[in-house]
Amino acid sequence: MIPERQLIEAIRRAATKTVNPAVIFGIGDDCAVLQMPAGLHLLVTTDMCVEDIHFRREWHPAKSVGHRCLARGLSDIAAIGGEPLACFLSLALPTNLPQRWVSEFMAGLLGLAHQFKTPLSGGDTSAAEKITADIIVLGKVPASEALLRSKARPGDLIYVTGELGGSASTLRQLYLRGKKAAKAGDRHFYPMPRVAIGRWLQKNKLATAMIDISDGLSVDLGHLCEESKVDGVVSLKAIPVARGADLSLALHGGEDYELLFTAPKLAKLPRRIGGVPITEIGEIRARSDKKTTVKSIDSVGLLKPLKPAGWEHFTKK
Amino acid sequence: MIPERQLIEAIRRAATKTVNPAVIFGIGDDCAVLQMPAGLHLLVTTDMCVEDIHFRREWHPAKSVGHRCLARGLSDIAAIGGEPLACFLSLALPTNLPQRWVSEFMAGLLGLAHQFKTPLSGGDTSAAEKITADIIVLGKVPASEALLRSKARPGDLIYVTGELGGSASTLRQLYLRGKKAAKAGDRHFYPMPRVAIGRWLQKNKLATAMIDISDGLSVDLGHLCEESKVDGVVSLKAIPVARGADLSLALHGGEDYELLFTAPKLAKLPRRIGGVPITEIGEIRARSDKKTTVKSIDSVGLLKPLKPAGWEHFTKK
Repeated sequence: MIPERQLIEAIRRAATKTVNPAVIFGIGDDCAVLQMPAGLHLLVTTDMCVEDIHFRREWHPAKSVGHRCLARGLSDIAAIGGEPLACFLSLALPTNLPQRWVSEFMAGLLGLAHQFKTPLSGGDTSAAEKITADIIVLGKVPASEALLRSKARPGDLIYVTGELGGSASTLRQLYLRGKKAAKAGDRHFYPMPRVAIGRWLQKNKLATAMIDISDGLSVDLGHLCEESKVDGVVSLKAIPVARGADLSLALHGGEDYELLFTAPKLAKLPRRIGGVPITEIGEIRARSDKKTTVKSIDSVGLLKPLKPAGWEHFTKK
Repeated sequence: MIPERQLIEAIRRAATKTVNPAVIFGIGDDCAVLQMPAGLHLLVTTDMCVEDIHFRREWHPAKSVGHRCLARGLSDIAAIGGEPLACFLSLALPTNLPQRWVSEFMAGLLGLAHQFKTPLSGGDTSAAEKITADIIVLGKVPASEALLRSKARPGDLIYVTGELGGSASTLRQLYLRGKKAAKAGDRHFYPMPRVAIGRWLQKNKLATAMIDISDGLSVDLGHLCEESKVDGVVSLKAIPVARGADLSLALHGGEDYELLFTAPKLAKLPRRIGGVPITEIGEIRARSDKKTTVKSIDSVGLLKPLKPAGWEHFTKK
């Protein structure tokens, strides 16, 4: 392991390539200093990646771990309709970790940061037994126009971007057949946060509520409906299932980082936004009970509860 | 261990007691939403606490771990002359950790958050083998008035707040004699970030550069001098040594979270700010070489290099 001071200097040098006018002073002082134009709200999200919980060193190349780490944070900004401004990284590393692993992790993270004009602007380092990376992403959105989870209304239709279950399908292959089963370039290893679609929906004021699918459709639709105090009904035959996946993976598999949003019935949504398909998958209803329920409806019209069964780390134990 | 969703709900309820007008929407969506008044710059800092690196469960009560976690972040805001606005917590916990530990940790963290009007406004949770807490603190400072490390000038005098070595002295006792040696209320367990002093120095425009002493005077003065491209000379007899500590602990012991700052010779600094003593300990000189050096001067005028020997985690390995 390289000493902390050298690590910070190396990261500082590598991070200078990416700039964002919001960042006045990045790595190198007690705090980073940023400026926010008037009329905007600031967005903040944090996401923690822990070795053997969120990734395995034998399955995930270091570059993928760095990419996925930042992708999670950018996806949260996308899910509000925001534009990312800067990121921060707290990184705890085993002392015997090869320097090459760290370099490739940083290359994966900084590559995505550059693509999204989100400079790495500060953070912290520590020793640890397991690799632990906490990513913080700051973003902006026009004042009072954040697309929250809580604004879905009965009668709204439910939409998703892209296809679901692809990431979980790769994960299943990794479990069953080990590293060789995986195609290195696929969406599980290098997910693309839907920032442009989130921005488009926010600017065009078509969506009422939005969330990203990080834990799985069944879990995340549950979150959206709970925060909005409504029920949700999903049509099983409408779910866009990714190639290699099945309906169960599409309903419950996490880490696709697609967007799930609601829009009024009369809103005219395009079939694609930025080339990505937009699929209507169900509708929001008034609560039938004091508690939110999410149901699925099959091809013959049978309604069944859609129980949240996604990748929630603690409940799996 | 309590399930993730319940943990988040419990934290969300506990966190509502503390408010700050900057926070429009805290825990419960993909991002927190904040507003920043015009004419201010945003400060961001992250600090990671890892079990067995930054604390030991057998030595540190859970309440102290929570308090120390946030104190580190608040101290970084203090070191810029800023005012804290909100905090965010990414928390990874062993699945067999008693719920009581988590409650007391949160009580320590939220108590300090309340005292400094810094509401917990978001974060993330995960499982992990070792307790890992990453704290993010956001703050504000009038535009272009952040007290950076890089503005010390030759001829400036060097000052510290409070006394040094107290935290390291307790740590030494813990190493030598175990938990019984420690007084539970002391500064090692419950350090108080010097936010009011930092704000006072910023408002009165007396200081040129500032840093907090987290790693130890020898290390942190080195950082300040390097960023300012100057040399530093510290008078050993002037160092305010905390009771129970010795000169070596005062020079190299970390985690006192006092402020170290420079001010022009002609600046009229009070002897105390908010009741805390301010001590002149040395002066800034022009670099004698291409590289920064920090020296100590003893009572007979002998100059010696003051090598950084503080608590830098990786270099200790």
